[in-house]
Amino acid sequence: MKAGNGTRLFVNEVATRDGFQMESRFIPTDDKIALIDRLSGLGYAKIEVTSFTSAKAIPALRDGEEVMNRIARRPGLVYTALVPNLRGAERALESRIDEFNIVMSVSETHNLANLRMTREQSFAQLAGVIALAKKAGVPVNVSLSCVFGCPMEGEVPLATVQGWIDRFAALEVQGITLCDTTGMAYPTQVREVCESVLASHQAQEWTAHFHNTRGMGLVNTVAAVEAGIRRLDMSLGGIGGCPYAPGATGNVATEDVVHMLQCMGYDTGMHLEGLIAAAAELEALVRHELPAQVSRAGHRLTRHAPPPDFDDIVIRARERGQAHKELQS
Amino acid sequence: MKAGNGTRLFVNEVATRDGFQMESRFIPTDDKIALIDRLSGLGYAKIEVTSFTSAKAIPALRDGEEVMNRIARRPGLVYTALVPNLRGAERALESRIDEFNIVMSVSETHNLANLRMTREQSFAQLAGVIALAKKAGVPVNVSLSCVFGCPMEGEVPLATVQGWIDRFAALEVQGITLCDTTGMAYPTQVREVCESVLASHQAQEWTAHFHNTRGMGLVNTVAAVEAGIRRLDMSLGGIGGCPYAPGATGNVATEDVVHMLQCMGYDTGMHLEGLIAAAAELEALVRHELPAQVSRAGHRLTRHAPPPDFDDIVIRARERGQAHKELQS
Repeated sequence: MKAGNGTRLFVNEVATRDGFQMESRFIPTDDKIALIDRLSGLGYAKIEVTSFTSAKAIPALRDGEEVMNRIARRPGLVYTALVPNLRGAERALESRIDEFNIVMSVSETHNLANLRMTREQSFAQLAGVIALAKKAGVPVNVSLSCVFGCPMEGEVPLATVQGWIDRFAALEVQGITLCDTTGMAYPTQVREVCESVLASHQAQEWTAHFHNTRGMGLVNTVAAVEAGIRRLDMSLGGIGGCPYAPGATGNVATEDVVHMLQCMGYDTGMHLEGLIAAAAELEALVRHELPAQVSRAGHRLTRHAPPPDFDDIVIRARERGQAHKELQS
Repeated sequence: MKAGNGTRLFVNEVATRDGFQMESRFIPTDDKIALIDRLSGLGYAKIEVTSFTSAKAIPALRDGEEVMNRIARRPGLVYTALVPNLRGAERALESRIDEFNIVMSVSETHNLANLRMTREQSFAQLAGVIALAKKAGVPVNVSLSCVFGCPMEGEVPLATVQGWIDRFAALEVQGITLCDTTGMAYPTQVREVCESVLASHQAQEWTAHFHNTRGMGLVNTVAAVEAGIRRLDMSLGGIGGCPYAPGATGNVATEDVVHMLQCMGYDTGMHLEGLIAAAAELEALVRHELPAQVSRAGHRLTRHAPPPDFDDIVIRARERGQAHKELQS
């Protein structure tokens, strides 16, 4: 595994969208705003603030406009949101978001299950959203679900993935996110897929999005970065998940990924201690234990006190050493 | 990240020692034996059955002799146990174990806290155990704790690690295990340490032992294998931990590591479905949720059913497509 050597990586936070939409408790609007404002100071390149889906479909994010309008925007930081259709795009433009994040699945079954449309129907709808964004001068990122496998169909051929990438690249989207929606990716596959698709289009910004469902979120992140990915989606505390994969844990945890990448010598631009503090606040908001590990265990160099009887142990060990020497003499 | 290309790796199970010694509930002797007999059929190279520590120090493993004597030994599989001192070595020999696993820490503070001796005192005691094993013709593996850092001292210099390795190599131990006792290792460090120490002594068999405390257990495993490590300690279900690092989770989970390595094309010799079934039995024994992920989420290609209303979704999507075509014509 190669050392980071200061390579700059860019971190996108998705907890406030991908995470909050899975929480059973509605997170109060003021709390969402306070959390996002706090996160804005921690070094992120991008924060996915909310989703302009219908309030009926995702009640957890029904306050999208208010959140977008009341957060304190930090210059240079991209505040994005999920935009599912033209109605959502109009709401997003009214809220002056910096980027549209549009979503479809490269798996027909998953797209039908998740978006209730065929992939062709989704693509047609999203092409309309892209046209509107272009007119308004707002960049578009497309997040492709199930790039590394579908929980219902199994393997998704690389040619299928590449086909949808080509079609979105032809519409001149600014960014493409390769999503491992239910944690099916493994490192050698990640390397192969990322190397292949990154070589196919140079005009797009590429992002990887991993879930830790089978424990491989961090190792897949390293594989993606080694394959040339420089932008990574992560979720504070590791919140989020997928309703179509029972037992699936959430997105890779921001604090776990940042900690690892910093240890390896990558420049993430992130404030790790600030993340750990923000994760504690998030845990209080969602009212359940977070799957993230570094917020519990601390930085690898966190010092722990020796046991309370340590001085006695040392004294007794020295005495044994002395007795041993006396026996030998 | 390189593909495995069928490279043979060897799996050591430590749940029945490193794991059970941390459980608050005493696992009944019959249950231990039944579990080990089951594990013996799953492809392991080695199983660390128990510890011949005093019953007072580790009551959870006070039945070491009975377990060793009653398990059904599979030819070729190495049944090892932790042997702390000469008294333990005599018990281990009576139980006809295939290998002694001896332990000390490369960190003075951790050795004192954990073993209540200075490192020199531990080394002197273990040299006696090695001499006894040599006389009895039993191979010895030394597990060195805190190779990748000490929770109380912080970084442990590679020269310190190398110094203790040299001293044990001089005593002609057959194997050396590099233990990341509290999950402080990170991938580029693992590569550096493993490459360096493996190059220093060719006569020994090398093993790596990772904990998942900060989520890096799997990525560190890949780093170790890429650096030439072929033997890996893991714990079914991810049970185990370290009393001196609060919040520390357990060893890397056998099913998670095996699943990843198999996906990457390594030959582990292991029966993954059997592991997942054994983990369910283990969970019933320890009576708490296990940290392992693959036993919950299943193999990456496990198929999940689409939502119950999937047929209706498809019909409605087709109708919308038809309506759209009629509107256009």
